[in-house]
Amino acid sequence: MRVLGIDPGLTRCGFGVVDGTLGRNPELVAVDVVRTDTGTDTAYRLLRLERAFDEWITQHQPDVVAVERVFAQHNVQTVMGTAQAAGVAMLVAARHGLPVALHTPSEVKAAITGSGRADKAQVGAMVTRVLRLAATPKPADAADALALAICHVWRGAASDRLVRAEQAATEQAARQRRAYALARRRTPSVPGHEA
Amino acid sequence: MRVLGIDPGLTRCGFGVVDGTLGRNPELVAVDVVRTDTGTDTAYRLLRLERAFDEWITQHQPDVVAVERVFAQHNVQTVMGTAQAAGVAMLVAARHGLPVALHTPSEVKAAITGSGRADKAQVGAMVTRVLRLAATPKPADAADALALAICHVWRGAASDRLVRAEQAATEQAARQRRAYALARRRTPSVPGHEA
Repeated sequence: MRVLGIDPGLTRCGFGVVDGTLGRNPELVAVDVVRTDTGTDTAYRLLRLERAFDEWITQHQPDVVAVERVFAQHNVQTVMGTAQAAGVAMLVAARHGLPVALHTPSEVKAAITGSGRADKAQVGAMVTRVLRLAATPKPADAADALALAICHVWRGAASDRLVRAEQAATEQAARQRRAYALARRRTPSVPGHEA
Repeated sequence: MRVLGIDPGLTRCGFGVVDGTLGRNPELVAVDVVRTDTGTDTAYRLLRLERAFDEWITQHQPDVVAVERVFAQHNVQTVMGTAQAAGVAMLVAARHGLPVALHTPSEVKAAITGSGRADKAQVGAMVTRVLRLAATPKPADAADALALAICHVWRGAASDRLVRAEQAATEQAARQRRAYALARRRTPSVPGHEA
């Protein structure tokens, strides 16, 4: 499973791609940060990010896109831009027909460090260790995007299987209902009296 | 000036187009509400809205897109979806090369009713009167989108002229600088000694 993790932001947006197989350590594929100019209109900053999301998906062909779930925190204006960047990431993923997984910052921290309240340095250190990198990816947005992707490999693999199992069960139930309806139509309610 | 007003929202997104000329009452061109299913993934709801923004811009060819500026209010989860819908509206406008104007709810209310604290009914009544409609557009999101477009015609016309005047002044200054630099290059600093 290849996961594109996105730490959304207008000023700095983190991109991280990892390959994950159950029972193996995830492998780093690519990591970067895309910046947009604070002096530019938000609409054009979103357009720049849209192009970046599209390029990363086209180039790396992920199976799923993991985006940080944005909450309203102290800095309300920053959070609006972050929510919009996340929205555009989700939009581009949907346009490519890719599933989108949202993980909260504390889910990511808990998955990768064991504590939902770990600090940036701890997350960076664990990303470096898990991916066996020579140095911690900088800035923190890059490491956070990789942490999101790793978190999805570890947490998402289980939940993806759950979703697929539920879908399979739903489809089987639908097939049974259709088969039953068909059988009912074929079996006349008053034998010998149908047209 | 033709303005597309957008009252952003995931569940109901208001669209309103008006034609405005200074000194005349704005005219209604089109109004509607696009709904997306609460049971659908946010990514696909944003994709549906993106298509609607694109269709409205292509069909009505506005000169400017006016979007309600989103603030973090009491309902934080709703606000995130609203911010994302607004972000996608801005993105699509930018993709079409259109300017985006953001107006706060109180700016819109003040422009159209004279009070920044007017209620929905008052805004609806004034939209109906200004556009000389037989009935108030329903639901409120439709009337709000028209109020945004009217607000932009009335407020934005002035600020657009300001922006254009500033741009013209900036461009003139740049032309003067270029002319000056060219003149300096043509005028040798030590006459008779240039190559």
